[in-house]
Formats: sequence, C-alpha cells, structure tokens
Amino acid sequence: MIRFYNGSVLTMIENDGVRSCEVWTDGDRIAFVGVPSQKQLEETVFERQIDLKGDLLMPSFKNAHTHSAMTFLRSYADDMPLQDWLFKQVFPMEAKLNDERVYWLTRLAILEYLTSGCTAAFDMYFNLDAYVDACVGSGFRSVLCGSVSGGPERASEAEDNFKKYNGKNPLISYILGFHAEYTCSKELMAAIGELAKKYQAPAAMHSSETKHEVDECIGRYKMTPTQLFDSLGIYDFGGAAFHCVHLTDEDRQILKKRNVSAVHCPASNLKLASGIADIVKMQQAGINVALGTDGPASNNALDMFREMYLMTTLQKVKNEDASACDAQSVLRAATVGGAQAMFLKDCDVIAVGKQADLVVIDLQRPNMQPQNNLVKNIVYSGDKTNVRLTMCAGRVLYEEGEFFVGEQVQTIYAKANSIISEMKQE
Amino acid sequence: MIRFYNGSVLTMIENDGVRSCEVWTDGDRIAFVGVPSQKQLEETVFERQIDLKGDLLMPSFKNAHTHSAMTFLRSYADDMPLQDWLFKQVFPMEAKLNDERVYWLTRLAILEYLTSGCTAAFDMYFNLDAYVDACVGSGFRSVLCGSVSGGPERASEAEDNFKKYNGKNPLISYILGFHAEYTCSKELMAAIGELAKKYQAPAAMHSSETKHEVDECIGRYKMTPTQLFDSLGIYDFGGAAFHCVHLTDEDRQILKKRNVSAVHCPASNLKLASGIADIVKMQQAGINVALGTDGPASNNALDMFREMYLMTTLQKVKNEDASACDAQSVLRAATVGGAQAMFLKDCDVIAVGKQADLVVIDLQRPNMQPQNNLVKNIVYSGDKTNVRLTMCAGRVLYEEGEFFVGEQVQTIYAKANSIISEMKQE
Repeated sequence: MIRFYNGSVLTMIENDGVRSCEVWTDGDRIAFVGVPSQKQLEETVFERQIDLKGDLLMPSFKNAHTHSAMTFLRSYADDMPLQDWLFKQVFPMEAKLNDERVYWLTRLAILEYLTSGCTAAFDMYFNLDAYVDACVGSGFRSVLCGSVSGGPERASEAEDNFKKYNGKNPLISYILGFHAEYTCSKELMAAIGELAKKYQAPAAMHSSETKHEVDECIGRYKMTPTQLFDSLGIYDFGGAAFHCVHLTDEDRQILKKRNVSAVHCPASNLKLASGIADIVKMQQAGINVALGTDGPASNNALDMFREMYLMTTLQKVKNEDASACDAQSVLRAATVGGAQAMFLKDCDVIAVGKQADLVVIDLQRPNMQPQNNLVKNIVYSGDKTNVRLTMCAGRVLYEEGEFFVGEQVQTIYAKANSIISEMKQE
Repeated sequence: MIRFYNGSVLTMIENDGVRSCEVWTDGDRIAFVGVPSQKQLEETVFERQIDLKGDLLMPSFKNAHTHSAMTFLRSYADDMPLQDWLFKQVFPMEAKLNDERVYWLTRLAILEYLTSGCTAAFDMYFNLDAYVDACVGSGFRSVLCGSVSGGPERASEAEDNFKKYNGKNPLISYILGFHAEYTCSKELMAAIGELAKKYQAPAAMHSSETKHEVDECIGRYKMTPTQLFDSLGIYDFGGAAFHCVHLTDEDRQILKKRNVSAVHCPASNLKLASGIADIVKMQQAGINVALGTDGPASNNALDMFREMYLMTTLQKVKNEDASACDAQSVLRAATVGGAQAMFLKDCDVIAVGKQADLVVIDLQRPNMQPQNNLVKNIVYSGDKTNVRLTMCAGRVLYEEGEFFVGEQVQTIYAKANSIISEMKQE
C-alpha cells in the first residue's frame, strides 16, 4: 500500500469538487479514498507514505493522440512550408527508422510525458514491438492505434495486431484503425469496418485535420470523412477521430450518435496551420472531447499543460467570447475525456478499484498562487513545474524532477542524439 | 567575480550563434566573455564558480508589457464575457488596492517572472512607491510606464513621476506614457507629447488592442490611435506601443519611422478575444517587436516561454504558412527586442560591459533533446522546467527552484492569499 495524505484530492468525478481526504493505492489500483479512522491507519502496513504537504492529488493526464517516436524530428524541420516539411524532411527520415531507434526515441518521449503528468498515450506509429518494449520497460501505459494504409491486403495485419497486442500486458491495448481516408483505399477502410463488426470493437483514425483533406474526400466519395467512415460501418462500435478541425453539423451528429470521441490537438493544428477546431459546437452536441499533443514533429513539445491552455484560449478567440470552453471542461478533456477516448475505462477518475494513474500538482509555486480557484489555476497558469509526482499503475515513475523508468536518463539522451546524428549521415 | 564555465553561450549578438566559452560577471556587469588563459584563471579571485555542466547561458528574457500586481485576479474572473470581467470583477477589485497590497502582489509576480527566466518588466500600474519597493527589494529590474488617464491636469503627475523615478535606483527607470487613447482626453495626450519633446524622451501606451478601440478613435479623430499619437508629437523621440493587434500599413510605417517598438502580447490577445497581431508584417516593415505577458488577469500566467511559443505558432496559422515568424526572430523579441522596447540599452546581449542579466537554460531535460537546434528547442518545446538559474544585475535571484529575493516565499504566498480573501469580504 502507498498512502497519499495531508493534501487535497480532485477526483474528477462529476460535481465532486476538491476534497480533503486521503488516497491509498494497492498494487496497480486505488484501494481507499476518504478519511481513515485511527484503527484503519494502525492496521494498515504502508510500503510508503507520501506527505502531500498541502498539494493536490488528481487523475493523471491522458495524451489521446501522438506519434511518440517522432522525437527525432524535434527542431529538425520547423519554420518551413508544410509540403517541404513532409516530403523533404519527415518522410525521408522516417524511412530510416528501425526497431532499436523507435525504442530509444519512444523512451525519450515517455520521459517528457511523465514531466507533464501524463501516464498514457494513444499512439499511432510503426515498429510496434519496439514501441511496446519502451512503454512496458518504462512502466508507461499505452493504447496502440492501428495505422495501416494502402490497399485491402493490409487489413489482415490490423487483425493480427489486434489479436497480438490485446491481453499481452496490462499496460498495453490495441484499437483497430487506419491512418486516414487520404492514405487508404475504400476497400481497406471497408475491411476495417468489417473487423470492427466482427470483434464488436471501436476504431480510430486521423479525420478532418485539414480543409484540403475534407474537400478531396468529398470529391472522391461525395461524403465528408466522417460520413464515409459511418457509411462503411467503421463507427458501429464507437471510436475516436483525431483532429476534427473541419466538421459539419451532420459530422458532429454522427460522432455523437456513434459514441465517437473527438481528439483535439490544438498545438499541432496551429503549427501546421490546419485551423482551430470548433470545440464549443462539439461540447454543445454532447461529443466526448479528448486532448492530444500529436507527434513532436508537429508540436514540438509533449506537454498536456500547453494543450489545455490552448484548448480554452483558442475557443475564446475563435468564438469572440471570453466565456467559451471553461476550465472545468478542459481539465475533463485532459483526464476523463482522454481515458474515454482511449477506452481505458479504469483510468478516468479517483475511486476505489480504479487504476492508480495519478499526479501530484505542486501548489507551492508562484503560478498556483493565490488559490482563488484550483481548476482554473491548473488550466490557465499551470505548467510542468507544477508536476511533483507522476504515478502509473501504482508505480511512481517521476518525482521531484527524477525519473524511475528502468533506464538512465543520460543513456536515453545519448542514444537519441547518436541516432539522429547517424540518420542525418545515412 | 562570478564565473560561468563548462557550457555554451548564446550571446544574442546578431549572427553570433552558440559559442563555447566562459562568461564572468563583476558586480552588476559582464566582465569577460571568451576562453580564458590559464594565467587569467590563476590571477582571478572568484566569489563563485558556476559549473554549467553543458547547459546554455543566454541573456534573460524581458517582459515588455505587464501589470504585475494584478496577480490577485488570477483565476478570479475567467470564463466570463469581457464586459462582465472588466466592470463586475476587475474595476471593483482594483479600487480596493493600496500600497501594502500592491507590494505583496508584485512580490508574487516577480517570483513567477524569475521562474520563467525573466529579469525585467515594463510595468503599467498604480501605487508606484510600493511597486518600486517590491522590485528593488527582490533585486528585480523594472521600467515604470506612465499610466495617467483623464484630463490634462494629470500631465504634471507624469512629469513628477518622470523626475522622481529616473535615477532613483539602478534597477528602476520611468518612461513617459498614458493608459490609452480611449481613457485620455486629447489635451492630456497632447501634454504628454509636450513632455516627450521637453525631455527628448520616448513615450509608451496601450494602442490598437481591439478593433472597437480603433473604430472609436477613428470616429472621434478621423485617425487611428497610431496616427493620432504621431500627430500629437508623442512619438517624436521614439516609444513603445502595447498590443498593436489592429494596425494599418500606414500605422506600421509610422512605428518604423518614429522608432516605436510594438509589444506583442499573444496570450492576452487570445484570452480576451482581441485577435492575432500581424507580426509578419511588422517584421517586414522593420519594426522592433518585443514580447509581453500583459497582467495575470488576462493571461493568466507570467511565462515568457508561453508567449514565445504563441508568437510563432499563431503567425503560422494566421498566415497559413508554416514557415512564418521563425524561432530566431522570436527569441530575439523575447530578449534583445524587449530590452530595446524598454530602453534598457545595456541589458540586451552578452558582451563585456553589459548588465549581467542572464539565464541558464537546463538542456538535460527531455523537452530539450535531441539537440538538433538549440534555438528552436527553446522556442518550440522550452518551458519553465528548463530555467536552472536567473541572474539580475549580477545577483542570482532564482536557482534550482529556490528563490533568493529577500523575503520568504511562504510569506509572500500567505500575504497574497490573505489579501485576496480580505478584498473579497470588503
């Protein structure tokens, strides 16, 4: 048992507010939430007692869309037009990746997730075995997203991965999916729809990220990507759509009806000049909204505080309404909304039996003072200096600036730097 | 003498790049930049030797527009329409401020500036004696900006303050100014113009923050704010204009010709839904651009990394061009551009004789790896966790999360919280 005491707790259970209580974890789960009796305290053997010193314990953040291994492209290809970025920098460099490189580059990304209080990533990339090794080795949770593209022959790969990675490790799951409409044949997308029905499983993909993508899809199919996916039965058992910058009212009705989460990636949408998604309309339609960083090539940070801040302020300027998209709805998206979009039903709130995926927010920093409103402080002025401790599945992976991830940080940095320098020379 | 060694140095001198050298400070100034001889090292007595351990030393950030004492409004009045925010929350609470309150609330803001590597603020507010005490007591540099409004009888106050605060303390200077066109009579603005000419001094003010403000000014004077100020001689000796969200081509020509800096406040402009300033056009016109946080009520953080990130990404989405406003130009705005806008001619770059206003950037954090490009890393993925040390006028004020500002941090937090709770009850 690990005991968190002497602080406050934000359970993220609706209308629960900030509570003054303790949280105990047992193995990978939360075992107790409340004010213990003296007898309970005396009878319990704690492996560790963590004095919150007045700080706040809350559910960790969930990064609902990313490509973790793209850390190698950080600051490598910025400030250039999008087509040059993609065709001259990203694609040629990605072709040089292999298992070992993906392993170390993912390791680097996980360190950064932990510094921003994030314990799970919904990741779409290649070299899945290496990626899984990096996550499991770090103690970090991940949901793999199918990333097939091309012709229908790739569907069997998706089915194989679905069977291979689900149930392999408690930290790992796999959601059916494909890259995007514009990189897949209709036959492949239909085949993923068939698999969704066969396994009664949700599916996820990039969708409606750019206006160009939507226009081209309408040109090909006389339907938006959302309408097309729905018509192919891909959303019959729910799912998640990454980006959703350019949706119609009908698209939003489909997402709501089919129980598909919209994963908002505000920093990436700015940097790649994709636009600003209409979160207010999504919220009004009752769609579950989650938050993602996207990959480091298009962000460049992997920082959930940045995404939270952008989510609310961009809605204000887009809607010319300073009251749009309030802090509570943003914090929900970064935690509960993310868990829902990633189908991590036990990782959403602080309650007995839930996974112990937790973060301690340091309130004794100037940006958290005065304490007029803790939720607003976190969303509007919070940053990574406020992450005191990050716990995933009951294990402390990051605390007071130090990492506990089974590899030395300096080794990870050195590997990442030597990999990028090799790749530049190849 | 304090010696910084075993790291790299970004002087921010144009085309200088990242250098491998040492920097020594003597009192409040930089005494040496280069690779010392063994003899020099043996003959020099160092008060302290700071091992950079491979980290980066660079000029500190300059916050070129803020209202520091507004920390009391952080998370107090968010997610509400602008008119309610201003008239129901901000103005009634500001009326309750006094010297003691401004002192402690400014103290809190300075802590936060230091955590983001910032050593100077261009501040427009009231209770100047208390504000100056907070800055000087902390060892923090500040440029006071005239904030008079109303009728011409206020001009004598501006002149008194100009004489009172300039030369009072090496950390403090005062620039003539007024609040904004929409809060001042034409006679007051003309009187400030006369003072600018009398003292051959620059002047600063809010300008063209909202479209409404510009439209109203045109309605009153058939001129934009920039044209009006120029016609009154206010810019005859240069100046600084805060916000500049809505400028015409002619406005930009005036700012360039009159040597007036544009102070960009991207976070505030988002939160208050003012719009996105056209920085690309300002850069093309050759205008000096600086960066500011604006006050905590409209941001809510005081974080120069947030401003830098927003400056570049918002230009990309505004111009639909991922190559707009590159990282180098952003880092320049946050350092050299800020110093220029604040008329701090000795606080811009790292060179012998300049003020020792410095920051050590921790490169041994995951968001700074791999090291493809240090400048891009700082602007795109840097954050306050990368601020290892902040030095102002040769004194270390912040290091490894600890503050050295002449007051206990817990005292400042307690005072700020009791002040806000008193004000809520009054």
